[in-house]
Amino acid sequence: MAKTMKALMKKKPAAGASLEQVPVPTLKAGEVLVKVRAAAICGTDAHIYSWDQWAANRIKPPLIFGHEFCGEIVELGAGVEELQEGDVVSAEGHFTCNRCFFCRTGQGHICEDVEIIGVDTDGCFAEYVRVPQENIWKMDPAIPEEIAAIQDPVGNAVHAALIDEIIGNNVLITGCGPIGLAAIAICRYAGATQIFATDVNQYRLDLARRLGADFAYDVSQVNLVEEVHKETGGRGVDVFLEMAGKEQAINDGFKALRGGGWISLLGITDGDVRLDINDGLIFKGARLYGINGRLMFDTWYKMEALLKTGLDLQPLITHSFSFEEFEEAFELVLSGSCGKVILYP
Amino acid sequence: MAKTMKALMKKKPAAGASLEQVPVPTLKAGEVLVKVRAAAICGTDAHIYSWDQWAANRIKPPLIFGHEFCGEIVELGAGVEELQEGDVVSAEGHFTCNRCFFCRTGQGHICEDVEIIGVDTDGCFAEYVRVPQENIWKMDPAIPEEIAAIQDPVGNAVHAALIDEIIGNNVLITGCGPIGLAAIAICRYAGATQIFATDVNQYRLDLARRLGADFAYDVSQVNLVEEVHKETGGRGVDVFLEMAGKEQAINDGFKALRGGGWISLLGITDGDVRLDINDGLIFKGARLYGINGRLMFDTWYKMEALLKTGLDLQPLITHSFSFEEFEEAFELVLSGSCGKVILYP
Amino acid sequence: MAKTMKALMKKKPAAGASLEQVPVPTLKAGEVLVKVRAAAICGTDAHIYSWDQWAANRIKPPLIFGHEFCGEIVELGAGVEELQEGDVVSAEGHFTCNRCFFCRTGQGHICEDVEIIGVDTDGCFAEYVRVPQENIWKMDPAIPEEIAAIQDPVGNAVHAALIDEIIGNNVLITGCGPIGLAAIAICRYAGATQIFATDVNQYRLDLARRLGADFAYDVSQVNLVEEVHKETGGRGVDVFLEMAGKEQAINDGFKALRGGGWISLLGITDGDVRLDINDGLIFKGARLYGINGRLMFDTWYKMEALLKTGLDLQPLITHSFSFEEFEEAFELVLSGSCGKVILYP
Amino acid sequence: MAKTMKALMKKKPAAGASLEQVPVPTLKAGEVLVKVRAAAICGTDAHIYSWDQWAANRIKPPLIFGHEFCGEIVELGAGVEELQEGDVVSAEGHFTCNRCFFCRTGQGHICEDVEIIGVDTDGCFAEYVRVPQENIWKMDPAIPEEIAAIQDPVGNAVHAALIDEIIGNNVLITGCGPIGLAAIAICRYAGATQIFATDVNQYRLDLARRLGADFAYDVSQVNLVEEVHKETGGRGVDVFLEMAGKEQAINDGFKALRGGGWISLLGITDGDVRLDINDGLIFKGARLYGINGRLMFDTWYKMEALLKTGLDLQPLITHSFSFEEFEEAFELVLSGSCGKVILYP
Repeated sequence: MAKTMKALMKKKPAAGASLEQVPVPTLKAGEVLVKVRAAAICGTDAHIYSWDQWAANRIKPPLIFGHEFCGEIVELGAGVEELQEGDVVSAEGHFTCNRCFFCRTGQGHICEDVEIIGVDTDGCFAEYVRVPQENIWKMDPAIPEEIAAIQDPVGNAVHAALIDEIIGNNVLITGCGPIGLAAIAICRYAGATQIFATDVNQYRLDLARRLGADFAYDVSQVNLVEEVHKETGGRGVDVFLEMAGKEQAINDGFKALRGGGWISLLGITDGDVRLDINDGLIFKGARLYGINGRLMFDTWYKMEALLKTGLDLQPLITHSFSFEEFEEAFELVLSGSCGKVILYP
Repeated sequence: MAKTMKALMKKKPAAGASLEQVPVPTLKAGEVLVKVRAAAICGTDAHIYSWDQWAANRIKPPLIFGHEFCGEIVELGAGVEELQEGDVVSAEGHFTCNRCFFCRTGQGHICEDVEIIGVDTDGCFAEYVRVPQENIWKMDPAIPEEIAAIQDPVGNAVHAALIDEIIGNNVLITGCGPIGLAAIAICRYAGATQIFATDVNQYRLDLARRLGADFAYDVSQVNLVEEVHKETGGRGVDVFLEMAGKEQAINDGFKALRGGGWISLLGITDGDVRLDINDGLIFKGARLYGINGRLMFDTWYKMEALLKTGLDLQPLITHSFSFEEFEEAFELVLSGSCGKVILYP
Repeated sequence: MAKTMKALMKKKPAAGASLEQVPVPTLKAGEVLVKVRAAAICGTDAHIYSWDQWAANRIKPPLIFGHEFCGEIVELGAGVEELQEGDVVSAEGHFTCNRCFFCRTGQGHICEDVEIIGVDTDGCFAEYVRVPQENIWKMDPAIPEEIAAIQDPVGNAVHAALIDEIIGNNVLITGCGPIGLAAIAICRYAGATQIFATDVNQYRLDLARRLGADFAYDVSQVNLVEEVHKETGGRGVDVFLEMAGKEQAINDGFKALRGGGWISLLGITDGDVRLDINDGLIFKGARLYGINGRLMFDTWYKMEALLKTGLDLQPLITHSFSFEEFEEAFELVLSGSCGKVILYP
Repeated sequence: MAKTMKALMKKKPAAGASLEQVPVPTLKAGEVLVKVRAAAICGTDAHIYSWDQWAANRIKPPLIFGHEFCGEIVELGAGVEELQEGDVVSAEGHFTCNRCFFCRTGQGHICEDVEIIGVDTDGCFAEYVRVPQENIWKMDPAIPEEIAAIQDPVGNAVHAALIDEIIGNNVLITGCGPIGLAAIAICRYAGATQIFATDVNQYRLDLARRLGADFAYDVSQVNLVEEVHKETGGRGVDVFLEMAGKEQAINDGFKALRGGGWISLLGITDGDVRLDINDGLIFKGARLYGINGRLMFDTWYKMEALLKTGLDLQPLITHSFSFEEFEEAFELVLSGSCGKVILYP
C-alpha cells in the first residue's frame, strides 16, 4: 500500500483549504483503514472551509476535514473481528465514549464526551481514513456508493421524520437543504399524504418537487400559513419538520400546525429566536422533538431497510467533483444551488 | 327551591365585580342544576376581575364568572340519566362540540369550538350553576369539598406532570402558583427523586417546601442553573415543568435539563419569548409537550385515583372567604401570597 | 319516500335467511335514515347466516342483519345538525354509551355497553338503515362506494397494522381473509420492507400477492418459520399481524418474530389455545396488542387519509350480487374463495 | 493477595454442590477482580443446585455458580479506566457481544450471543469474581450491601413494572417470589393505587403485605377474579404483572384485567400453556410486554434512583448464611418460605 496519500486539509486558521500529500494513517488496536471511494460535502464542511465564527472556535488546524463517505476496508488493526479487507463500508462519524450515562442507556448520539471525525480528528477528504471498528457500517451491496456516502445527513432526516407517526399525515418541511430534501423523499416513502416544502432557492424547490413534495413554496413570495390552511381545509398540517434554522420558518410552522400535531426541530439557528409558544405549542397541545444526529445504530438499520427496498434518493445527488476540483465544489455548496455534492479521490 | 340567588358578576367592562341577586338558571334538556358548596379563584378570574387586556378582548358582560367548584345536584333537566339529585359533583368547565376532528379523536381538550364556563357562559361564583350532564364529574366521598373544588387546576398539573415518565426522575418546576404547587405534590407522589421549585415569592416558596419540594429557590437571589447542576452531580434534571410563563424561566429550564430529558410547557407568556433552542432543545435531543387544560376525562380519572389513595393537597388550600368578602379574596389572589383561595356561597 | 322496503332477514333461529318486505324505519331524535347503495358481507354475517353456536347465543330473531355499507342520507331526525340529505356516508356500526369509563377516555371501541348494528339492532342488508348521527362517517367523494362500504373491516386492518411502527419493518401476516388482505395493502403503503402472508386457500394467496405480499405461503405445504428465517437472513420478522385465529399460526408467528418485535392479535380463536409464551414472548422481549375493532374515530380519519392519497384496495373487491342473489353470495363467502363480496339492493 | 479462594462449585452433573479451594481468577485486559462481600441465591441457582432438566441441558461442570453479588474491586486488568481499587460495585451478569443488531440498537438485554455469569462462566459464589469493566455497576454509598447484592432480580422487577404506566393504576401481581415481592414495593413507591398480590405460600403472602400489598390472596383458597372485581367496583385492574409462570395465574390475570389495561409477562412457565386470548387479550384491547432481564443500563440507573431516594426493600432480605452453610441456605430457598437469601463468603 502507498505510504502517502492526498488529503484536503485546513492547514491554517483562515478561509480556504489545500490539497496536500500526507502520510497514510497508521492504525491503533480496534481500528480499520478505509480507502475512500466517495465523500460528500456537508454544511459543516462549508463552515470549516469558509472559516466562520463557529469554525474558528471549534477547529484546530491542521486537520483533514470531511465526515461523509463510503469506501473499502484495506487494513485491519489489532483485535478487529467481524470485519474483513474488501468490505464496502460507511461509518458513523460520532466516536462515543461508551462510558457515560448516555452511552450506557442507548443514547450514544448525545454522548457527553463525543469526538467527531473530520471535526475533532482527521476526516474523510483523503484517500484513506482511519475508523474505530465499532463505528463501521457495512454496506448492503444493493446500495450505490454515492448514496452510501451520504448516510450521515440522510440518517438525520430519517431520525427527524420517523421519530413519530408519518403514515397518513400531512407534513410541512421548512428548508430544502440536503436534509430537508431527504426528509421529503422519506416522508413520501413512509406514506405521508400531502407534503409541503419551503425554501427561497428555486433550484432547491425544483429538487423538492422531484423528491416528492406536493407543494414547494418560495416563502419570499407566498404566505406559507395561508397556503397550508387553504390546501388542508383549514386544519393545518399534522407534522412540521423544521430544517431551515430560521425564526420565521419556526413561527410559520407553529401557525401551520394543527392542534395535537408534532414537530421535529433540526435546523440550527443563528443565536436565539423569538417565538410564539402560546399559540404555537401550548394551546395546540403540540409535542416537539429536538433532533441531534442519528440514533446509533437504530437509525442506520432503519435507513438501510428503506434504501434496500425502494427509497430513491438519486435526485438528491446533483454534482460530483474530483478532490482536485475542491474549490469549485465548495463554491457550489456555498451558493446553495445544489443537492448533495460528491468528491471523488 | 329559591327563585333567585346571589351571584358574583362582572356587570360592566371595567375593573371590579359586584354581588348581585339574579334568577336561578333554568335548565335545558341534558343539563343539571348544581348548588355550589365551594368555589375557587383561578388566575383567569383575577384577570377578569382586574379587567386586563385579555379580559377586555374575551369577556362580554354581564357575566357570572368562576369555573372551579364543587356542589350538589338539586335538579335534573329533561333526559338526564345516570345522575341523581343529591349527587356531590364537580365539573369539567370546557363544553366541547363533540363533532370536530378533535372531539372525535379523544382530544376534546383542544376542541376547535369549545365554550368555557365562567368565561363564555355564566359560571360558578353563584349559589347555583347550570352544567351539561356530560361535563359533570361525580365525586368520590373520600375527597373533601375544597379539594373537589380545585380539580380544574390540579388536573392541569396532573396532565403536565404525568404526560411522560416521573418515577425515578429529577424534576424542575418553575413557578409556584397553584398549578406549580400541585405539580410538586403530584411529582412527589409519583416517585420523583429530587424536586427543584422556583419562584420569587417567599410565601409560595414556603408552600413549595411543604408540598414536597426538596429545593425551593428564590430565582431573584440565586443562580438556578448552577444550583441544579451542583445538586445533580452536573447532569441536570430529567424533567422540566414550566409553569411560570417567563422567558428567563424557560431558558433557565432548558439549561438545567439533561440531554434526552423532557419538558412540559404550561405557563402562558406575555407575548413572544426569545429562546435558545439550539442548546436548549436540539443538541439535547429533548422532547417537549405543550399542555392545554386537562384530558377529558382521562386526567379526571387519574386525579381521582391519586386523591383517593393519598395525594395530599390540603397545604395548597390556604385561605377561604364568603362570597360577600370577595374584594378581600381577590386582593389576596392578586398579591400572590396565597395558595388556592376558596369562596363559600 | 316508499313506506316499505326489502330487507334480508334472519326470521327464525335456524340456518338461512329470507328477503322480506318490511316497513322503512322511523327515526328517533338524533338519527338519520340512509338509503343503502352498497353493503358488504362480513364473516360475522356468515356466522349469522349459518346459525352457528355463537349466532344462536347472541342473535335474537327477527333481525335485519348486515353492518358494512355505504349510502346516502335521505331523511334527518329531529335535532340532527351538520348532516344533510344527499350526504354520501358510511357508518361506524358500534353504538357506544358515551357514559362509561371507556367512552369517557377515548376508548369507545371497548365501551362496556355497546350495541352493534346488524347484530343487536336492525342492520344494513336493506334498502334503508337507521343510524345515530354521531356514528355517521361522511365520505370523501374521491372514494368509490364499494370501498366506502368495507371501511369496517379495513378499519380493523388499519388499527391492527398501524398501532406501532411499520415503516422499514418486515411483516408477517397470518391469515388472508379480507382483513388480512387489507393489512397487506396497508403495510405495503406504509413502507414495510418484506411482507410475508399465509393461508391455505390458493385463491386468497393469489389475492395476497396482488395486494402486495412479497411472499404468500400455503402453510399446509411449507414450513413457514424456516421460510421466514431464510428470507430474513435468520433474524425473523419485525412485526407479526395475526389474523387467522389459529393456534398453529400464533405459535409459528411467535417463532418467526425477531427479538424485540411486536405483534397484533386480531383473529378470534375457537376456544383456548396452547402457546409457547416463554420463547414466543418473554425471552424475546416482545410487545403485543390485542386488537378489538377500530378506534372511534381516529382510525376512520387515518383510513380516509390513506384511501384519498393512494391506498388501492380495489383488488380486494372480488364479487358482487343483488340482494335477490343472497344465497349464492353467502355460499361464496362460506367457501372462502373470494375477497370482499358486495350486495347491492 | 491470596492465590486461592473458596468457591461454591457444581463439580459434577448431579444434584448438590461443594465448597472448594480454587485458584483466584487471573484477569484479561478490560476486566476487574471483585472481592465478594455478599451474594444472593437466585431461583436459577436453585435449579443448578437441584440439577433439573434445564440445568442438565445448560450447565457444563465444573462451574462456580452464582450471579447476584456486590463487592469491592481489588485488582484492575490492563486498560481499565474509570474504575479504581476500592470501588464498591455490583455487576450486570449478562456479558453481551456488542456487535449484534440488538447490542447496536440499545437492546443488549436480548443480545443474540450473550454469556451469563455463573451459568456460562464462573460466577460469584466465591471469594473473588472476575468481571468485564463494562458490566460493573458502581454503588451509591447510600445503598446497603445486601440490597446491592440483589439488584439483578430487583432490576427485573423494575423493568417489568415500569415499562408502562403505574402511577394511579391498580395492579395485580401474581406470584410472590423475590421478583414479585420487589415489584410490590416498586409499584407502591411509584404511586399505584390498589395492589393485589397472589401466592399459595403464607410466608410469602405475609411478606407481600409487609412490602406494600393491599391484598394478598392465597389462590388455593379464594377466587382471585371475584375478589379483584369486588374490590375494584367491577372494573378490574389496570395492570397485571405475571411473575408466577403458571397457566392458571395467567388466565386469572387476563380475567382480572380491565379493558385497555396492560400486562408484563415475566414468569417462565413449565412448557406451553393453554390461554383464553379472545377474552383475555383481544376483546380487551390489552397490550402485553414480554420481560427478559433488565435494560442495560437504563434499568440500573432507574433502580439506583429509587433505592437512593426511599424505595425500601429491607423486608425482602429474610435470611443470611455463610458459604459454609450453603446446604441449609439452598434447602430454605427450595422450600419457598423465604424472601431473598444472602450468602456471605
